Amino acid sequence: METLRDVTHIDNVKLNEEENAVVIIDQTQLPNKTEYLTLGTAKDLYDAIFELKVRGAPAIGICAAYGIYVLARQIETEDYDTFYAQFKKDKDYLDSSRPTAVNLSWALNRMERVVTSNQDKPVEEIKALLLAESKEIQAEDMRMCRAISEYGLALLHDGDGILTHCNAGPLATSRYGTALGPLFLGKERGMEFHVFADETRPLLQGARLTSYELQKGGIDVTLICDNMASIVMKNGWVQACLVGCDRIAANGDAANKIGTSGVAILAKYYGIPFYVLGPTSTIDMNCPTGDDIKIELRDPDEIKKKFYTEPMALEETKCYNPAFDVTDHNLISGIVTEYGVARAPYVESLKDIFAKKEQETLHNK
Amino acid sequence: METLRDVTHIDNVKLNEEENAVVIIDQTQLPNKTEYLTLGTAKDLYDAIFELKVRGAPAIGICAAYGIYVLARQIETEDYDTFYAQFKKDKDYLDSSRPTAVNLSWALNRMERVVTSNQDKPVEEIKALLLAESKEIQAEDMRMCRAISEYGLALLHDGDGILTHCNAGPLATSRYGTALGPLFLGKERGMEFHVFADETRPLLQGARLTSYELQKGGIDVTLICDNMASIVMKNGWVQACLVGCDRIAANGDAANKIGTSGVAILAKYYGIPFYVLGPTSTIDMNCPTGDDIKIELRDPDEIKKKFYTEPMALEETKCYNPAFDVTDHNLISGIVTEYGVARAPYVESLKDIFAKKEQETLHNK
Repeated sequence: METLRDVTHIDNVKLNEEENAVVIIDQTQLPNKTEYLTLGTAKDLYDAIFELKVRGAPAIGICAAYGIYVLARQIETEDYDTFYAQFKKDKDYLDSSRPTAVNLSWALNRMERVVTSNQDKPVEEIKALLLAESKEIQAEDMRMCRAISEYGLALLHDGDGILTHCNAGPLATSRYGTALGPLFLGKERGMEFHVFADETRPLLQGARLTSYELQKGGIDVTLICDNMASIVMKNGWVQACLVGCDRIAANGDAANKIGTSGVAILAKYYGIPFYVLGPTSTIDMNCPTGDDIKIELRDPDEIKKKFYTEPMALEETKCYNPAFDVTDHNLISGIVTEYGVARAPYVESLKDIFAKKEQETLHNK
Repeated sequence: METLRDVTHIDNVKLNEEENAVVIIDQTQLPNKTEYLTLGTAKDLYDAIFELKVRGAPAIGICAAYGIYVLARQIETEDYDTFYAQFKKDKDYLDSSRPTAVNLSWALNRMERVVTSNQDKPVEEIKALLLAESKEIQAEDMRMCRAISEYGLALLHDGDGILTHCNAGPLATSRYGTALGPLFLGKERGMEFHVFADETRPLLQGARLTSYELQKGGIDVTLICDNMASIVMKNGWVQACLVGCDRIAANGDAANKIGTSGVAILAKYYGIPFYVLGPTSTIDMNCPTGDDIKIELRDPDEIKKKFYTEPMALEETKCYNPAFDVTDHNLISGIVTEYGVARAPYVESLKDIFAKKEQETLHNK
């Protein structure tokens, strides 16, 4: 029997230093099987991310950081240029596994900077610095999730009905989660929420992961199909929507799992606040608006065949299968980060968030 | 190879007089198998409707009309009271199979009126009148679908992108369909539409039936998950939404497949016209508003288990599984009936539609 702590402190991505590999929970096997995978090659790592065995923007970042370290350790040379050339090749390969979530390239770029800013050091020392950086990325994520959970919880009231889409819980991050973090933290403090989890087609992260995590954590959860969000809101059962994010543009437009923008439009119609929760690593200030975010298109068979005993449409029928959509900033009541809650106008408030981040980083140095 | 006519003129519900049974296409087996079922008992008929082997408000009405005739023929008596008592019992049983669609009780009430208004006639003659009435219900539906298709087509332009939810095509009616009728009729006349079919969870009528019918009919169709309607609209690919309906209240509120209200809210947000198409038999003038429409709740396992190779959520996880939702009349651009298009304010325009119906009925007598 799991305790709440078992759920919130799950080790979904970790480094196995002896085997020089990244160990992940295969999220595609949940909820029926809890299987750990050991990823030791570039192809293993690429496939795990591409096939969503590891998913959730923060978890992908952590996996990529540990992954590029594991690959760097395998480069047998003492020559910096040879080392960096192979490192760069591995990095670009991992970076190409999924285009929308910014944490993937954010984490890989951080790791690359460790290499390029330490050219003068022996390769062995660079490898040690890479290890430290990857561990710091995970440690930071734990602190960020906790802070986001606190800021998010302050927006809710005991007894609230909450609607969430896709999965931004402990499995998608390290500890607590982002969108689900406030709910777990509130539960620790004796608060009761009534959560409606959109199943989130086509890959059903809401059914397979979110309802699973909340159920295991003892939080009241009701699973619904995505198209039931409207009636649940109309019934008066939802006081707030909480979702994660994969990339936030400088104007507050937020890319998240396909269907999120629809939930936001419904929330606006029914007068329900709609919050996006994510670490500042998800905010891409180099991306002016949502129109500049590349949307990943995936295999039509995820819609027609995946999970089913037999196909649900004809072989020749076309599908459109975008993995994400962009929620317009006008639909977002607040963006909850580890440095506080940004409110409209986001062009200003997101800059303030980064200013606060810089200040605190300087202060801690 | 099917022709367009094979698709629009499919015999999805028919009476087999020799065997005294209703023959239907089992819609739960599509698109993988085209299987005909022969329904000769009250339980067969009830189960076929309850399990959605026959579905779509008009098709259910036709099936119920033929069904109650088949059962009436089995009543071996020449005594009116004995006959009517058993007829009433069968009728109430069939009527209880699904609560939301009004056509079911509408058709059964029409059949009952044939009995009660002919008490003075021999039972054998009443049975013959029931046969005529059931055939007339189907014949009327064919005429209605054709008229709805014409009125609906007049609202569209060649080349339009159309979004539809669930299935209101030939399989749901007799001939052409309601929401899909204008598309098939337009195709006959050489027009091209680009249709986006919501897959329509949890029972996937959009994937299994709508994309199937359109594909077979040579109409350009793209299957999407329900939660992709927002991005498709945002992309500018949709010029009109067409949906069927199961019950329309006197104020224009329309019950249709779960998720329809969400599509209507998205359409409003993106400035896209949203049309509800259905015969006047679907309009329940005795039902003042959508709040008075009873919503059928179905088995949670339709969400967690149906169609899947293994469960997608834990056994103990709750689900909420309403089969329908109500779209507020304020979100509806027009209600397309066989007597023309009603526009807001619906309290007035629906009365006008019925006045026109009465006038034409008198004229034809």
